[in-house]
Amino acid sequence: MNLTITDVRLTPILVADPPLLNTQGVHQPYTPRLIVEVETQGGVVGVGETYGDTKYLELARPFARKLIGRQVGDLNGLFVVAEEVAVDRSRVSGQVDVGGLRGVQTADKLRLSVVSGFEVACLDALGKALGLPVHALLGGKVRDAVEYSAYLFYKWADHPEGVPAEKDDWGAAVDPAGVVEQARRFKERYGFTSFKLKGGVFPPEEEIAAVRALARAFPGHPLRLDPNGAWSVETSLRVARELGEVLEYLEDPALGTAAMAEVAARSGVPLATNMCVTTFAEIKEAFTKDAVQVVLSDHHYWGGLRNTQQLAAICRTFGVGVSMHSNTHLGISLAAMTHVASTVPNLHHACDSHYPWQSEDVLTERLTFDDGRVTVPDAPGLGVELDRDRLAELHRRWLEDDGSLRERDDAAAMRIADPGWVTPTVPRW
Amino acid sequence: MNLTITDVRLTPILVADPPLLNTQGVHQPYTPRLIVEVETQGGVVGVGETYGDTKYLELARPFARKLIGRQVGDLNGLFVVAEEVAVDRSRVSGQVDVGGLRGVQTADKLRLSVVSGFEVACLDALGKALGLPVHALLGGKVRDAVEYSAYLFYKWADHPEGVPAEKDDWGAAVDPAGVVEQARRFKERYGFTSFKLKGGVFPPEEEIAAVRALARAFPGHPLRLDPNGAWSVETSLRVARELGEVLEYLEDPALGTAAMAEVAARSGVPLATNMCVTTFAEIKEAFTKDAVQVVLSDHHYWGGLRNTQQLAAICRTFGVGVSMHSNTHLGISLAAMTHVASTVPNLHHACDSHYPWQSEDVLTERLTFDDGRVTVPDAPGLGVELDRDRLAELHRRWLEDDGSLRERDDAAAMRIADPGWVTPTVPRW
Repeated sequence: MNLTITDVRLTPILVADPPLLNTQGVHQPYTPRLIVEVETQGGVVGVGETYGDTKYLELARPFARKLIGRQVGDLNGLFVVAEEVAVDRSRVSGQVDVGGLRGVQTADKLRLSVVSGFEVACLDALGKALGLPVHALLGGKVRDAVEYSAYLFYKWADHPEGVPAEKDDWGAAVDPAGVVEQARRFKERYGFTSFKLKGGVFPPEEEIAAVRALARAFPGHPLRLDPNGAWSVETSLRVARELGEVLEYLEDPALGTAAMAEVAARSGVPLATNMCVTTFAEIKEAFTKDAVQVVLSDHHYWGGLRNTQQLAAICRTFGVGVSMHSNTHLGISLAAMTHVASTVPNLHHACDSHYPWQSEDVLTERLTFDDGRVTVPDAPGLGVELDRDRLAELHRRWLEDDGSLRERDDAAAMRIADPGWVTPTVPRW
Repeated sequence: MNLTITDVRLTPILVADPPLLNTQGVHQPYTPRLIVEVETQGGVVGVGETYGDTKYLELARPFARKLIGRQVGDLNGLFVVAEEVAVDRSRVSGQVDVGGLRGVQTADKLRLSVVSGFEVACLDALGKALGLPVHALLGGKVRDAVEYSAYLFYKWADHPEGVPAEKDDWGAAVDPAGVVEQARRFKERYGFTSFKLKGGVFPPEEEIAAVRALARAFPGHPLRLDPNGAWSVETSLRVARELGEVLEYLEDPALGTAAMAEVAARSGVPLATNMCVTTFAEIKEAFTKDAVQVVLSDHHYWGGLRNTQQLAAICRTFGVGVSMHSNTHLGISLAAMTHVASTVPNLHHACDSHYPWQSEDVLTERLTFDDGRVTVPDAPGLGVELDRDRLAELHRRWLEDDGSLRERDDAAAMRIADPGWVTPTVPRW
């Protein structure tokens, strides 16, 4: 079967994002994403989605050119192509990425983030051409629906005054009562029964109080707290002592393998991560030192759906749990996450997803959560359809931006409200 | 696309095997294999091959019945089905399997050995139905040919007198000159440039002399020696000192993770294994202790081609090399090995294969080695065709056997020549 790639289209867009708070600052009113379309001989089009910041775009463009003429099913070859694409070294560092809290930034990881957008698009096209859903291309689903957790955020009611933004209907949440109210609405609207609170925003005592309030309001429901590495080992241990009874796991309380290993050993509370282990290169040390008990995979930066399956196999082999991390993403990625999650036998925790926070999408029909679950699509490919008018509209927003929103920068957004804001040094508490 | 499995056929056969020596004894004149055929709605038939001893057959039969009505592409589901098939506990033990030198025998491993036969057959059928080669179903080949090594054996010229057997034209090899002569013929006939000697047969000094003779005869060629765990740590270290300069790696010099780790640490010679690490459950301890430097995967007992890819990903992540082990097998398995090996980027050592020792096959056309390599088939499925007449003939041999050859038993074969033979205790030297 000849499925030669004849065209690859890259469309950077800006999508509305509510004023969600994290330890680095606040989400900007619009965030960049990159929509990938891969077209094959015969006119089959597959779609993918990944980070849209300039450094990803710069890498995606030469990568896209190299794909023309290759077979759409040559997924292993994507990694070979990736090696051939030069990464601008000024774009990477060993430091935590300020904007996305995505762990280390290496050239490999940057490449893998781009690979993932192409891989998902290729899988979508391949599935459409063969008449098979993506999960079937991944060996077949082992469950018919994938469970997600409510992703609770401290948030403002609105973006700072004077900043162009879309209005959301979630209101503010800056204290325990606000967090519980947000959780209630998540449960009502989507049926979620697991709750994750993005922490590292307020002093630990306030966040402990919020989690306790959640535990009282939703007894027996799995709860998680994620301060994005904002705490010292001692603070982490204190929070673990206070909340150990009610937490399913604590996510990235402290930064770095050594600190995580110490917290894990001394607290006995399971630690999840999307910061300590975000690349294959970080696995050996972290697993050898028992630094993490649950890896939150993100197919975007792990290099796609098949790499996510490999990560899950590694976790299974080492007795480490696996679930899924989420950054701001749209329906293409939610569909991709759902397909791969449905094929991972050892996925025993509800996955994270920002999707409910995204009022805008590029699909003709949004994916829905029922009882906190997304039904695994059985239509060919990802089972989603691109809304080209909407895509063009969101791309226009990107074109018209003066550049200030094309790189996600939560600290810059915070400085608009608080001109004296500097990115906190870690540990913050 | 509806690819429901409508029929599964299991055909146990006996295939001719030369009198190859190993530390447990000698190969019997015929060895059992199981040929699997999976047929889908529409009449597409896929073929697979795995171990044929009774304990595998007993498991494969109820497994086969459960596959009827399932989708042929539901490969992840095979592992779910496997869990539902009861294993007769008397068939497993924590001990090294005497017959096959295949490492520990657990219920899981027994199940995975059966899964692999079905998985390969399903991949073959799926590929044929979709018009794609198996390597494309595994994400695409990253090389067009797979390199194999010559698998040298100490051997007798003939099976013991009076024992019904096929005659081979390799002659005897019981000393360094015989081994070198065998290697020359392997090189002439197939173009192999790597050589592995199955050791553990004669006292270490004699095997050291044989490897030295190979090094003199084939300077610069990668050499390996595999005594199947027959040596103590001290003997292993002595051999490593003597041969360190000429060996690509030493394979399973001693049994068990602790012994292997000690040899690895003290010798500095890379250790390969298909006995210390043969299941996912054994990986963590072995990798944490740096007990092995190269894992020789065998898709039969690791649970198929996709599990082999997962194993390779784990090895890559932990900086451990990967290549392929071989037990007596036919062309279906050689094709399967070649397909999966072509998709593994980190496969940097020539794979093992017994195939040249097998004069009989169930294919209409044998696979060939050119310059020691098998070209990766690009035809749909595995790219091989079953010879039903030949299959029926070899099955008849199995049916007519009184049961003595249906379980591979190298020690029993040795006792025919040497009635006083007892399976050597380990370490033998």
